[in-house]
Amino acid sequence: MSSSDRIIFIGAGGLGLTAAFNLARKNPDLKIIVFSRETTVAYSQCGMPFVLDGKIPGFDNLILYNPEVFKDLGLDVRTGTGIASIDTDRKSVTTDKGEEVHYDKLVIGTGTVPFVPPIPGTGLRGVHRLINLDDGRSILKSISSSKNAVIIGGGPIGLETAPAFLDRGINLTIIERMPQLLPSSLDPDMAVLLEEYLISKGARVMTGKGVSSINGAERVESVTVDGETIPADMVLLSAGVRPNVELARKAGFEIGPAGGIVVDPYFRVKMNNLILDDVFAAGDCAEVISAITNKPMLCAVGSVANRQASYLTDQLLGKGAPYGPVICPTVCVVGDLHIGSVGLNSRACESMGIKPISFKATGNTRARYYPGGKKINIKLISDGERIVGGQVIGEEGVHGRINTLSLGIKKGITPIELADMETCYAPPVSPMIDPMTYAAEMLALRCARKK
Amino acid sequence: MSSSDRIIFIGAGGLGLTAAFNLARKNPDLKIIVFSRETTVAYSQCGMPFVLDGKIPGFDNLILYNPEVFKDLGLDVRTGTGIASIDTDRKSVTTDKGEEVHYDKLVIGTGTVPFVPPIPGTGLRGVHRLINLDDGRSILKSISSSKNAVIIGGGPIGLETAPAFLDRGINLTIIERMPQLLPSSLDPDMAVLLEEYLISKGARVMTGKGVSSINGAERVESVTVDGETIPADMVLLSAGVRPNVELARKAGFEIGPAGGIVVDPYFRVKMNNLILDDVFAAGDCAEVISAITNKPMLCAVGSVANRQASYLTDQLLGKGAPYGPVICPTVCVVGDLHIGSVGLNSRACESMGIKPISFKATGNTRARYYPGGKKINIKLISDGERIVGGQVIGEEGVHGRINTLSLGIKKGITPIELADMETCYAPPVSPMIDPMTYAAEMLALRCARKK
Repeated sequence: MSSSDRIIFIGAGGLGLTAAFNLARKNPDLKIIVFSRETTVAYSQCGMPFVLDGKIPGFDNLILYNPEVFKDLGLDVRTGTGIASIDTDRKSVTTDKGEEVHYDKLVIGTGTVPFVPPIPGTGLRGVHRLINLDDGRSILKSISSSKNAVIIGGGPIGLETAPAFLDRGINLTIIERMPQLLPSSLDPDMAVLLEEYLISKGARVMTGKGVSSINGAERVESVTVDGETIPADMVLLSAGVRPNVELARKAGFEIGPAGGIVVDPYFRVKMNNLILDDVFAAGDCAEVISAITNKPMLCAVGSVANRQASYLTDQLLGKGAPYGPVICPTVCVVGDLHIGSVGLNSRACESMGIKPISFKATGNTRARYYPGGKKINIKLISDGERIVGGQVIGEEGVHGRINTLSLGIKKGITPIELADMETCYAPPVSPMIDPMTYAAEMLALRCARKK
Repeated sequence: MSSSDRIIFIGAGGLGLTAAFNLARKNPDLKIIVFSRETTVAYSQCGMPFVLDGKIPGFDNLILYNPEVFKDLGLDVRTGTGIASIDTDRKSVTTDKGEEVHYDKLVIGTGTVPFVPPIPGTGLRGVHRLINLDDGRSILKSISSSKNAVIIGGGPIGLETAPAFLDRGINLTIIERMPQLLPSSLDPDMAVLLEEYLISKGARVMTGKGVSSINGAERVESVTVDGETIPADMVLLSAGVRPNVELARKAGFEIGPAGGIVVDPYFRVKMNNLILDDVFAAGDCAEVISAITNKPMLCAVGSVANRQASYLTDQLLGKGAPYGPVICPTVCVVGDLHIGSVGLNSRACESMGIKPISFKATGNTRARYYPGGKKINIKLISDGERIVGGQVIGEEGVHGRINTLSLGIKKGITPIELADMETCYAPPVSPMIDPMTYAAEMLALRCARKK
């Protein structure tokens, strides 16, 4: 790519801004423009629940880079500017202010949009989302005077925010339409542990029930669910996210079966069945390939977007390597509880035609005589041959085990290989027999019996 | 194996007692005798440093099973009884009390013996080892009146015990003959971090210096090292362990190049170049095969012995599978610092004829804006193709990363595969880019440059 080329990024999230940074550092002569609809960029979205619950002092702590840094790098970051359309013939984008800007290479990193349930009252005052810093500040402002709050949706961001209400003594009701919390990561028997934890902290959890309306004159006053009216002076909508693909769809780029933009292993979009050489999409708005099923899937995870940004940078510099399939490990922190998942859960297995064989074990995170150890719950899932998924819930040791599973599943390990994994041991940090290797051993026996 | 067979275990450590338990549970009709020189069995040796530093209330907490449990299982555990000799022709052992006992199958699980440096004064009062509960109780008794203590040897158990002295305000000198602490696990540049930590806690650390004598009339009064006399009212000898193979050697069993009993993948010992069908050895006294070099090595690690006990149980029940090569991950906890290692360090690489290529990274254990995160130091070592070793030092997140490396190294991962590993992310438990994947990425670049 010539150094006089102009690269345009649409979206300044974990994918776009990271790739733009990388590019500017590696080739300072490039002309790079980053458009963002938002007024503030380069902040951590994932940190917001922990500002609300007081663990992090303030929202300013979440701002990762001062705008001065962009200037120093020669990046032209245009905040508060959305893109209205893309014209691939003219190789240009048009801003929502009507300005047409030419590109040589275009990167779509538009991320996700929150799903807003189609019910009355979502526009009332006091009904919040938690997408950007303004949302966070607005929740923080009203939370101190709140007495009754409702979280609609049992997804990670909403649940991570639950302690912000509970720790303040606010009556909190969590409503999830599916019969369990975190339905996209957990099996029902694991989700129960999270539900019990939230109940122990004072929350009311209603699963398998849809909200029929949010009620109030100008401000929210209550929420109606399953015929019951629950008082609410605050509502947090957290009913999941969808890939933000409207702009791409309008431009004629192919949208895949999972709902994201279709890209090849070099992040190139498709149009009329042809791969475009100058338009790329990555991050939460694009589909990825599952390392387990080889089918397209979504993976709206910051660490994956960040890794894609590295590959995309090389691609834009003309030395790209193919980006491989993903496992998509996640961890969600709800108060003291860490909830991790990786690969397929049982429901995902069944929807892929895989008959899941699983084993669930409970163990300790330290030698049983060492004070302060925590219970840890591990569920492993196999397709009968390999490990295809894992779920881990506990107050410590979750992150490390999920990452081990992430590597193992990608390498195609079998239950017996995981059972044979050597684990390090010292009484203050681990039991001699890791509960994960124990679970793997029992899973291997179960798989052998089913053969 | 007939259920009237008699199985004899020599040694009641992590290998022997575990296998005897397993056997008794799976086949209650077996006649099982376990001989132990010690008066108390079924306690956690690894827990002793943490009783001494007050983290665990008392030594009784370390006793894992009441002797009643043995009786309930029908195990004949003969404590305080050593074995003086083995006669493979008569298929019998003779105890140190002169009793001859017949076996059908014999398992040698004699563990290790401490290395006692050949210097004057090791027999003085106040010179301790930390091998069994009596040692621990004896140290605990004298530590409260101690003012000046010396630890001879920079191995894990001694260093784990250091805080017991430092937290009590006792002047502590740690002396290691090699030029660094933990020489068998760490590279010198990583060992420096541990040394700095101990110094910051008030220890004096002398490396590359041998003790020439321990001085005193009846009780220890000082230690002479490098011409200097250091006052000492207590000395802890912690100069490493050796496989306890004297009995096996006397019986004619083959001892290997690493100093342990030679066994085949079914734990059968060798005699006059022949494999014996009725004598087995496992645990710390036997050699294992390195999964990296395929050469014999020692691995005195409880979690490995425990896993061997499972394989050995199946073997003794006549349905054995071959036990595979090992990686031997370790973690050592010195105060707040966790020190992990797995695979080969640079010195081990060089002694195996491998030219190590390494990269060392420092990162954070949480999102950088999340309070309470700790610095974590990671060194990865490659032979140019695969990852062959890793060392991790920090106050949290060490155990999980070592286990991930343990699995990865066994599966033969390359630096770029580790760099591509997907890690889960939530600000309270992890940074978005894991320092280990960053280190792997840089290591991959370094390996590519050296090609």
